[in-house]
Amino acid sequence: MNMKTPFLGTAYYPEDWDESQVPYDISMMKKAGITCARIGEFAWRAMEPRPGVYDFGWLHRVVDALHEAGIGVVMGTPTATPPVWFWRAHPEAAMLGANGVRNIHGGRRHFCSNNPDYVRASRVIVEKLGQEFGSDPAVIGWQIDNEIYHNGDASCVCADCVRRFHDRLRREYGSVEEVNRRWDLNLFSQAYEDIDEIPAPVNAWHNPHIQYEWQCAHEEADVEFITMQADILRKYTTAPIGTDMMPLLGLDYEAMNQKLDVVQFNHYDPEGNLDHPVFWFDMLRTVKDRPFWNTETAPQWPGSTAAAWAMPGEGFCRVNSWLPVALGGEANMYWLWRQHWAGHELLHGHVLSPEGRPAHVFGEIQQTAADFDKASRFLSGTRPQPEIAMHFTSKSWKLFQQQPVFNGHSYEGDVRHVNTVLHRLGTDPDVIGARHSLDGYKVVISPELFSLEDGGLSARIRAFVENGGTWVAGPLTDVRNGIGAHYTDRAMGMIEDMTGVRLDYSICNDNRHLKAAFADGTPAGLWTWVECYTLPEGAEALVTVTEGHSALVGKAIAARIPVGKGQVILCGMMADEPVMRKLLAPVLDAAGVRRYDTTGALTVVPRAGEAGEGLVLVEIAGKAASIGLDAPMTDILTGDVVSGRLDVEPYEVRVLKK
Amino acid sequence: MNMKTPFLGTAYYPEDWDESQVPYDISMMKKAGITCARIGEFAWRAMEPRPGVYDFGWLHRVVDALHEAGIGVVMGTPTATPPVWFWRAHPEAAMLGANGVRNIHGGRRHFCSNNPDYVRASRVIVEKLGQEFGSDPAVIGWQIDNEIYHNGDASCVCADCVRRFHDRLRREYGSVEEVNRRWDLNLFSQAYEDIDEIPAPVNAWHNPHIQYEWQCAHEEADVEFITMQADILRKYTTAPIGTDMMPLLGLDYEAMNQKLDVVQFNHYDPEGNLDHPVFWFDMLRTVKDRPFWNTETAPQWPGSTAAAWAMPGEGFCRVNSWLPVALGGEANMYWLWRQHWAGHELLHGHVLSPEGRPAHVFGEIQQTAADFDKASRFLSGTRPQPEIAMHFTSKSWKLFQQQPVFNGHSYEGDVRHVNTVLHRLGTDPDVIGARHSLDGYKVVISPELFSLEDGGLSARIRAFVENGGTWVAGPLTDVRNGIGAHYTDRAMGMIEDMTGVRLDYSICNDNRHLKAAFADGTPAGLWTWVECYTLPEGAEALVTVTEGHSALVGKAIAARIPVGKGQVILCGMMADEPVMRKLLAPVLDAAGVRRYDTTGALTVVPRAGEAGEGLVLVEIAGKAASIGLDAPMTDILTGDVVSGRLDVEPYEVRVLKK
Amino acid sequence: MNMKTPFLGTAYYPEDWDESQVPYDISMMKKAGITCARIGEFAWRAMEPRPGVYDFGWLHRVVDALHEAGIGVVMGTPTATPPVWFWRAHPEAAMLGANGVRNIHGGRRHFCSNNPDYVRASRVIVEKLGQEFGSDPAVIGWQIDNEIYHNGDASCVCADCVRRFHDRLRREYGSVEEVNRRWDLNLFSQAYEDIDEIPAPVNAWHNPHIQYEWQCAHEEADVEFITMQADILRKYTTAPIGTDMMPLLGLDYEAMNQKLDVVQFNHYDPEGNLDHPVFWFDMLRTVKDRPFWNTETAPQWPGSTAAAWAMPGEGFCRVNSWLPVALGGEANMYWLWRQHWAGHELLHGHVLSPEGRPAHVFGEIQQTAADFDKASRFLSGTRPQPEIAMHFTSKSWKLFQQQPVFNGHSYEGDVRHVNTVLHRLGTDPDVIGARHSLDGYKVVISPELFSLEDGGLSARIRAFVENGGTWVAGPLTDVRNGIGAHYTDRAMGMIEDMTGVRLDYSICNDNRHLKAAFADGTPAGLWTWVECYTLPEGAEALVTVTEGHSALVGKAIAARIPVGKGQVILCGMMADEPVMRKLLAPVLDAAGVRRYDTTGALTVVPRAGEAGEGLVLVEIAGKAASIGLDAPMTDILTGDVVSGRLDVEPYEVRVLKK
Repeated sequence: MNMKTPFLGTAYYPEDWDESQVPYDISMMKKAGITCARIGEFAWRAMEPRPGVYDFGWLHRVVDALHEAGIGVVMGTPTATPPVWFWRAHPEAAMLGANGVRNIHGGRRHFCSNNPDYVRASRVIVEKLGQEFGSDPAVIGWQIDNEIYHNGDASCVCADCVRRFHDRLRREYGSVEEVNRRWDLNLFSQAYEDIDEIPAPVNAWHNPHIQYEWQCAHEEADVEFITMQADILRKYTTAPIGTDMMPLLGLDYEAMNQKLDVVQFNHYDPEGNLDHPVFWFDMLRTVKDRPFWNTETAPQWPGSTAAAWAMPGEGFCRVNSWLPVALGGEANMYWLWRQHWAGHELLHGHVLSPEGRPAHVFGEIQQTAADFDKASRFLSGTRPQPEIAMHFTSKSWKLFQQQPVFNGHSYEGDVRHVNTVLHRLGTDPDVIGARHSLDGYKVVISPELFSLEDGGLSARIRAFVENGGTWVAGPLTDVRNGIGAHYTDRAMGMIEDMTGVRLDYSICNDNRHLKAAFADGTPAGLWTWVECYTLPEGAEALVTVTEGHSALVGKAIAARIPVGKGQVILCGMMADEPVMRKLLAPVLDAAGVRRYDTTGALTVVPRAGEAGEGLVLVEIAGKAASIGLDAPMTDILTGDVVSGRLDVEPYEVRVLKK
Repeated sequence: MNMKTPFLGTAYYPEDWDESQVPYDISMMKKAGITCARIGEFAWRAMEPRPGVYDFGWLHRVVDALHEAGIGVVMGTPTATPPVWFWRAHPEAAMLGANGVRNIHGGRRHFCSNNPDYVRASRVIVEKLGQEFGSDPAVIGWQIDNEIYHNGDASCVCADCVRRFHDRLRREYGSVEEVNRRWDLNLFSQAYEDIDEIPAPVNAWHNPHIQYEWQCAHEEADVEFITMQADILRKYTTAPIGTDMMPLLGLDYEAMNQKLDVVQFNHYDPEGNLDHPVFWFDMLRTVKDRPFWNTETAPQWPGSTAAAWAMPGEGFCRVNSWLPVALGGEANMYWLWRQHWAGHELLHGHVLSPEGRPAHVFGEIQQTAADFDKASRFLSGTRPQPEIAMHFTSKSWKLFQQQPVFNGHSYEGDVRHVNTVLHRLGTDPDVIGARHSLDGYKVVISPELFSLEDGGLSARIRAFVENGGTWVAGPLTDVRNGIGAHYTDRAMGMIEDMTGVRLDYSICNDNRHLKAAFADGTPAGLWTWVECYTLPEGAEALVTVTEGHSALVGKAIAARIPVGKGQVILCGMMADEPVMRKLLAPVLDAAGVRRYDTTGALTVVPRAGEAGEGLVLVEIAGKAASIGLDAPMTDILTGDVVSGRLDVEPYEVRVLKK
Repeated sequence: MNMKTPFLGTAYYPEDWDESQVPYDISMMKKAGITCARIGEFAWRAMEPRPGVYDFGWLHRVVDALHEAGIGVVMGTPTATPPVWFWRAHPEAAMLGANGVRNIHGGRRHFCSNNPDYVRASRVIVEKLGQEFGSDPAVIGWQIDNEIYHNGDASCVCADCVRRFHDRLRREYGSVEEVNRRWDLNLFSQAYEDIDEIPAPVNAWHNPHIQYEWQCAHEEADVEFITMQADILRKYTTAPIGTDMMPLLGLDYEAMNQKLDVVQFNHYDPEGNLDHPVFWFDMLRTVKDRPFWNTETAPQWPGSTAAAWAMPGEGFCRVNSWLPVALGGEANMYWLWRQHWAGHELLHGHVLSPEGRPAHVFGEIQQTAADFDKASRFLSGTRPQPEIAMHFTSKSWKLFQQQPVFNGHSYEGDVRHVNTVLHRLGTDPDVIGARHSLDGYKVVISPELFSLEDGGLSARIRAFVENGGTWVAGPLTDVRNGIGAHYTDRAMGMIEDMTGVRLDYSICNDNRHLKAAFADGTPAGLWTWVECYTLPEGAEALVTVTEGHSALVGKAIAARIPVGKGQVILCGMMADEPVMRKLLAPVLDAAGVRRYDTTGALTVVPRAGEAGEGLVLVEIAGKAASIGLDAPMTDILTGDVVSGRLDVEPYEVRVLKK
């Protein structure tokens, strides 16, 4: 099935409906402009009603009908929802809580990925599904399981999980003595005598390192569980395989997608928060070469037993649908097609109501479909053209969960804030993980990159700078080793050696006592965490403490330090947008980063490729915005030729081609 | 014992005091004007100190002394508090939590009504108590157990509860296939193969239907437990039997009281919230033909280990005491007579302090007693005369617990709001359950009547309208079936068919984007949930969307639709009092409902009967109010003749007879 | 080792560092001016790596090096942190939660002080440690365990704890009948038949008396555990022994320190809250004759995985260090010397960072050290000279936990408020426990002294008053017996009899209805709890109800009643500082209490002794303050002679000698 991209898709649960509804549903999908349907993800029992007894007839009939209608199918493996016969045979495969209480049947994702019986049963159903649909021309992609992630404090503590944890510790540390040494288990007399006696870190006051490793061990299990399924499916299919993930709790997109083909992502962000998906999409496009799929978003609002938000303004649905494809993806899919008529999530926004009536956003969806079609050639023949990379690493994200550093700190929130500042400065940065190459970027920004002991980052950043790159680092960058411990002979792992800077003081600040200013005297209001440096010769202080404790006054908070052919901008602060703009704009300009002159909350995505060159503009705040164009361009959606100062209406999308 | 009503009563715990205190307590009761005492409810151990060994001597002496003093006795069965010998023999009869932890001895209502040993022991003590006091002339009524209700998430999950749950499922659904079908258990592959393997809905993400049925099964057990006791008592007594209930968690007053004689009710509402008991009393009087008893209210404030409120204004105690008898009850009883000197609830408001001193409200209580006496003939010879009925059903209340629809939604809060609006419009509606007849009402109002599949409501409402009645319905009315599922071929179960209206969109609204107005242009500010309709020919839009998403603009939110000889006022909105008044006043007037012209927070209760005709006026906000009278009336309490515009003082009570 | 006081000390964890770091650490301690180091408290495993195998070599080397540098050692017993070999052998020695889940290895203070195996292992390590260091000249003191306290609702419920609880009940009550009687267990039919069947008060709604006794039983276990260690150590050492405590949950400082030598105290109070440590230090100095040690405070801020506060203003560290020694202690010690490099509490404020860099407050610490040295002779040769005692008893503190009386009530908060008022009135009161003598005080103040049935208080207070003393009592004073029950024949246990006052009404007040005024008409705004009295002949009303419920108007709220040669100021109210000052100032003046005329938040500590007479002044709010001096004095720190009105700068410390 050869399909135009971007896909406009939706989640479809035919197993929950009488089969007689299928023709109506498909006819309405056509009317809406839907081009692909995600199905199957929770339908294990419909596929295997009794152990070893399979029924794929119903599913073939739906898939065939969709195919006939020209709608592609993304087939989900149903491993998140084992049938009751599995639970009856293996109740101990359900997740075990720290309080000794096990999950029971009902709901989903309640079984332990480390349980051998669950893994075995999952293998079998995935193999069968692969055999049935692997070569089906309707199937344009695969989704493995659904929203798998480490559960934080609610994660399973069963014996299999603990055993896997011990396996990881043996692999990563080699011996219990090394665990004791690296975790400083002399502290509180905690040292263990055997790796096998290290417990799951619950029911006591545990240190951040054991908590970190415990989370990593769980994540490894999840990655292995998903990869196991991909390996099976690949025997039967050439369609791209992925797993739909939620950006939660430090989840490692690089590790999870390493053996997969297409990054899949679910997001539910309300009006006013569209800078969130912008950030995530800037990240998702860097994980794999292939354009990612936004597999879930709410057409109206999410809702399980209660609607989660009030109705957004008109245009929100359209803009929300456009963002993934503007920023480098090739699909936007709604959750869900038709609201469940019974069971869970009866208040969730939908395209069709249970009785089959179109939602109030139906027109926005139709327009989106039409526009995707118009822009298809341009979008599929171009890619975003970022000149800046910004780090957001799974390791730092995880380490900050164990050590938030100060109350209310959010690593993702702060990095997203910098991302938003960069967008407001008229650029579209890549957001990259630890393992991503730095080649080709003019500027690399690493806000709060807690540890550089991750994917060779330390050496690679150093090389990037010495070869002429501009690196913006800090605050809270390079101040922990790979498991979240301090260094004992230096405050920063690599930066002090590379730059000659000395980090004197790390201050938890609430602005009662501390004031700082730029070199031109402009006050620089600061957020909570402030790092004060002594600079080496040749460094230029950008922001300096002007008032506060006498030990701090005069110390640099932000500085430019030439290193090799490049430079480091050390930035021991976070701040509101105007301050961050004043700090970063000159850095970008000096590095020759192309910037567009915009007003308002305009997301500007420069794109280029064999289909030409142009810009996608998306207004994400529901307010007026504008951009200065330096050459006339043609709007692919309207045919208009525009130039000079271009006003962009609230929630407007423009696709401009040179 | 032939007693004047209304009773002014109090809870009395002689078992907690030295018997020497009884004469003093009774003398002070006389001084206060107390005419009945509730005793015995927690005194199982004093009655049966060892299994099968009984001691009722102390209780006879107290009952006799009360009788001698002319104070009636409401005798409680002590089943909420089994003695330690029962716990020792049957620790597994205590409630079992979802986390596997059982309740232990201490406190009350901690045993499971489904446990056969607990039921058996309860039978025995009730039988004995009935034998002892069934024909005692002092006993003017019986109270079974105390404040029994389903515990929501804290309800017992023991094997007996699960067995009873399965029994209910078998009875209601017939087969596991039907359970699977009606609960849509294809969703998430949840379907069961045997009713006996369906677990208590804990320790997983469960659907609203299983949660609803689980709650119903628990409620059935409670009803059966109470009814079992009533059946026993009835062998020995002709005095009215009831059980004192709290309005919590969807409790079904109709079911619980079906086999009982007198509705008993406990409430603890603070200053500023007296519209709450007004609502409940409007409801309680409709459950049985016999006037209800307000069995508990705080003379000062409630308090367990801390006082729950600050001191209300002067007159609050009196008004709070008057409300139940004004609105159709025949008793008000204080909790408690004398503050416990040790043990639980040492901060609870009281009539006497532990050292026997009168509370600061003692004078208000005395005045109330005197006034009850003066008004006794009028009150006992008249009943309220409602012309409006408003639905408040246990089923909808339960279903909204599982599906609150939007955050912060309160079914009881919203229906109470409409009740308050109706009172401010100068009427006193009946609040009725699903099974209550609609005969004789001019207007029936069903705000948020989530499901009409309850007690034949759907057909009875239809008949009511077609025979000329006015039905005000909505929002959130008729949009779920009897177990909380959507309809799949229509948005509303019966209304669309009856009226020809089509419910197009249900919108979660926060007023950022949506505006609406009456036909005369008056803006109508809306609360969270808004339903937008397409109207049939002949319908009149009352409120319409004027701004917002283009799909919604012009849609009707409230409308009048003639049906048969009557009409339906479909009202897809809730709103503040002025908007609701503007919507409802013309409806009432058109239906010929008698309204009084009042200002302030005046509760007006028209009463009539063999003792004549009149009004009881109760000012409930502690602020000035007034009423326009159309004929001179005599105040029974003061002897004054009043007419025209009558000012009512803050917290004043007037009993006006024509 | 003969050392100058006050000590400036710090917590030092050499077991967590490579031994090569010791010389650097000690050299920096010398540079900072540190004169003593707390070590060993969590190093059980380093001392006893395997059961019965000891290694004290490393510890001797550190102690010897400190000694050589002239730094005293406070040696901690490591019983809070048993090694993993103990846990492996005795997992059931870990604390058991109410939900049936046991603590596991990791963290600290996770074993049960009632477990015989844990006690036995603790005895052995303490004995060994005593043998090793008991006569070491470097060791200037001992600290037993660390921050032991009853855990409230999280306390252990193991069988040993329950057995100990039963032991206490047998001892305190004699029989189960007496338990039933005194706890009023007729209520809710709770009475037990055997003390051994009384459960830990969890998993039910328990009464305050069982909760109180349960807490006392736990505290007894803690006291016994600490005393056991002191008895062992005393065989080997003459250095003072203590245990470092936190002021939590009603902890009984008198009981815990009875067999110990030196009161040790840990506090972490942020900027703006320095009235808290002032209060605690006023209390600590009264527990034992020997000056107390402030064993822990944060040099910057506390922090486990997140910094708990933002940076305080300059001078805070110095003032915070001075407060304990100004108010009667002889040591201030920082937690911690060098921030842990891994493990727990990686964000905690420190003197040295993990990489060995001085914190920004290093200069303040150096100045404090120099000033301690200058003032050493004066401080060690004088003691505070309080003329007022204020009660703050462990029993009342515990009882209020079970019965907070009203929401948001804080016993310690309210007593601390009165303490602050007294300081603002220019005095420095002693804060005393129930067992402390009243001899020599001009005024005794007992705010919210819930029960006088404690240490013979009732009789001793009466004698104090009758012999001419002034006693300020109330509110909430003498209104509960020794286990938190009401009296049944009087509202107050002793006061009504002594004074002839009658407590008519106790009112929970929110100022909506109640108003009060002084005799001169000045309005007296009141806090939540108000007691209204009828006064006897000869009493003088000080504050009276002027508006509110008619039963209350005219009642006295505060009054002066002559008793014997003395007087009682009965005070049924708490209020803001101005009202409390207006009430208390004349009382103090009439009793001849010496007051200093101050402005601002100045802590004035009059001191006298063989080293002369003088004042220590500490400004605790970081704002300007002043004091009126009646004679010229010399500032020991600066050499300045001052007199008349003396301005004190924000966070300034002055040590003035006559």
